[in-house]
Amino acid sequence: MSKANIFYAQSGGVTSVINASACGVIEAARQSRAVGRVLVGRNGILGALNEELIDTALESKRDIAMLRHTPSGAFGSCRYKLKSVAANRLEYERLVAVFRAHDIGYFFYNGGGDSQDTANKVAQFSQDVGYPVQCIGIPKTVDNDLPFTDTCPGFGSVAKYVAVATEEAGLDVASMAASSTKVFVLEVMGRHAGWIAAAAALAAKSKGDPPHIIILPEVAFDPARFLQKVATTVAKKGYCVIVASEGAQFEDGRFLAESGGVDAFGHAQLGGVAPTLVDMIKAKLGYKCHWAVSDYLQRAARHIASAVDVAQAYAVGEAAVNLAVAGESGVMVTIERQAGIRYRWRVGKVALSRVANVERKMPKSFITRDGYGITTAGLNYLRPLIQGEDYPPYKDGLPQYVRLKNQLVPKKLPKFKMS
Amino acid sequence: MSKANIFYAQSGGVTSVINASACGVIEAARQSRAVGRVLVGRNGILGALNEELIDTALESKRDIAMLRHTPSGAFGSCRYKLKSVAANRLEYERLVAVFRAHDIGYFFYNGGGDSQDTANKVAQFSQDVGYPVQCIGIPKTVDNDLPFTDTCPGFGSVAKYVAVATEEAGLDVASMAASSTKVFVLEVMGRHAGWIAAAAALAAKSKGDPPHIIILPEVAFDPARFLQKVATTVAKKGYCVIVASEGAQFEDGRFLAESGGVDAFGHAQLGGVAPTLVDMIKAKLGYKCHWAVSDYLQRAARHIASAVDVAQAYAVGEAAVNLAVAGESGVMVTIERQAGIRYRWRVGKVALSRVANVERKMPKSFITRDGYGITTAGLNYLRPLIQGEDYPPYKDGLPQYVRLKNQLVPKKLPKFKMS
Repeated sequence: MSKANIFYAQSGGVTSVINASACGVIEAARQSRAVGRVLVGRNGILGALNEELIDTALESKRDIAMLRHTPSGAFGSCRYKLKSVAANRLEYERLVAVFRAHDIGYFFYNGGGDSQDTANKVAQFSQDVGYPVQCIGIPKTVDNDLPFTDTCPGFGSVAKYVAVATEEAGLDVASMAASSTKVFVLEVMGRHAGWIAAAAALAAKSKGDPPHIIILPEVAFDPARFLQKVATTVAKKGYCVIVASEGAQFEDGRFLAESGGVDAFGHAQLGGVAPTLVDMIKAKLGYKCHWAVSDYLQRAARHIASAVDVAQAYAVGEAAVNLAVAGESGVMVTIERQAGIRYRWRVGKVALSRVANVERKMPKSFITRDGYGITTAGLNYLRPLIQGEDYPPYKDGLPQYVRLKNQLVPKKLPKFKMS
Repeated sequence: MSKANIFYAQSGGVTSVINASACGVIEAARQSRAVGRVLVGRNGILGALNEELIDTALESKRDIAMLRHTPSGAFGSCRYKLKSVAANRLEYERLVAVFRAHDIGYFFYNGGGDSQDTANKVAQFSQDVGYPVQCIGIPKTVDNDLPFTDTCPGFGSVAKYVAVATEEAGLDVASMAASSTKVFVLEVMGRHAGWIAAAAALAAKSKGDPPHIIILPEVAFDPARFLQKVATTVAKKGYCVIVASEGAQFEDGRFLAESGGVDAFGHAQLGGVAPTLVDMIKAKLGYKCHWAVSDYLQRAARHIASAVDVAQAYAVGEAAVNLAVAGESGVMVTIERQAGIRYRWRVGKVALSRVANVERKMPKSFITRDGYGITTAGLNYLRPLIQGEDYPPYKDGLPQYVRLKNQLVPKKLPKFKMS
């Protein structure tokens, strides 16, 4: 019998290191005599449903190696969540049909919580219908909200981006504050958890350094208390740097970003937490303010990736192959932090059934009593994750990121009609 | 007679390399036997008016060397424009009094157009009142709008930041577009000229690569034509990346950023060009959009500075000392691009009287006929300016930026009452 192929798919929002995981999968598979080719879903799981399978055997060794330093999803990702088997059995049958047609014995799903849930369901279903596929979850999310893993590949690099941006913009504001801008607000990602905003706290090298206020989704936003803190900070330091999570919300659960009005064209303002906060500050305190929204820049910023994050992203991809070869299924690769003062980590695993749909919140012990800062415990957790630089090669002043050929294997099945 | 001291001041919005110019001034002055100490205005020219003069002789060699890779204004900058001599003669008299009291024979003003104008006026005034101070302008502005110099230190690094951000975010959008975000808008600086937005064009390595649309202040914004171009691009490429200058304006001169309505608190929305464009696109075309506003992040981003820009920033500081020692006054240091295919540059000089209040616009020949792109001539001008990386040292995952002691020399004069 020929060796079974691996099907690998990227899922959800991409990161600056998800391709490093792909690189780990493909390089490990190429070195293993136990597995066949790595086929990759074009645009994630949609590629499996549409039988659009990219043949990575056609990519050069050099191009695959370049994946390690290329941000975004090199094969395309997607926001598409499979429903339950009961709700859409046809999709699961289609997946298994495609897997069967292309000798796929392993399914590696590289994503966040939803993807781990899907991998678990596919593992179960494929077994139930008599074509057991070994399903391995590869963790990925800038949100850092997967349970049972010390961190999620993708997060460390966003954390580093946010810490560096806060340090740099903080110096800028400090040097202008005497006669100009007094308040700077940086909006960062994190709809449900404040991990990314928390990472800004790493920028402070001494007490009183920026960021002076961190707005976390975990702490109900109180405008009066916030404005008081801004005023106190400006009075004391001469300026105030604020880092706000896009998920910041009022006591009643409304997002700050949704509090905008209508624009000149009569439709609802997109908002953004940063301009909302700035409007409040200008109206009540009258300070000159500046604001930035980093959006995709933060998760695409491979040029300032964390070396630890890149190494972990590669390792979880590589580990998926090793686990598969060892006969494992229904597990997600994890990062385990080892005990000791010096940061050391290794890969581990956890049953997908335990991971599915569990969201890891930031512990209360990481948030200072006033709700605007990160404790020493939080900093000790975060600091190792941004260590080390891992610069991409440059040519002509720009990073050299790879674009793969992404050639599809010939289709063998009739077209599938998506529901 | 003791050697005359240099008074150096940083002016206006800071950049990621203005401290490299300060480093050039101080290191060159320390090596010269012809000049005394370098005294620096605390918060720019305000430091001279308030007699708050930082004594750089008290800073270590190592700390001064670190200025080369430290963004922002290490001594504080300010937005304060001296009026004309006729309108506020007292200020000019005060400057000369402070210069006289501290044996200052050289005034180096590091800034944009307004600062060069001030340096010129001070040169004239100090001569008229019989205490001639040699005034040298050191160019600095991310806006790249000073005349007679090939480029302005500060611009190359912002250009590199914007090109890298566009390349990275472009890959992100491309990988998500099949099922999610179709349009991404990045807002960049440049109130009056589109130099910074134009630099995004460097990100495209092949025809059709992002950015697909650049919105320049030089081209009147036509909503219908813009939306048509977005729709065409999405239809053809599957997604659309837009880079918009904050100075984008309608035919009638209104800024796009001012077109916002009022927010939930009843006061005018700050706006921002990016969310304004996104609102238009969502309302008329219905695409899922994302947007980023890079604001201070772009001009503080020393971590991704252009090596050419850093070298030029240092060189113009160093050259100011050499020009002063050579007896020059009333000149601004310039960067001269030498003829030839390979990019070579050297420092030059131009009379301040010619520089004052002249704004260099982007040539029409740099803008494509449809107004949304940059021509080969434009790219050829821009590309050399982002060459090379000049990474700061890192410790614990973060850049090591210096904070100087900034000790003031003892005051000798009565307090000055600012008008």
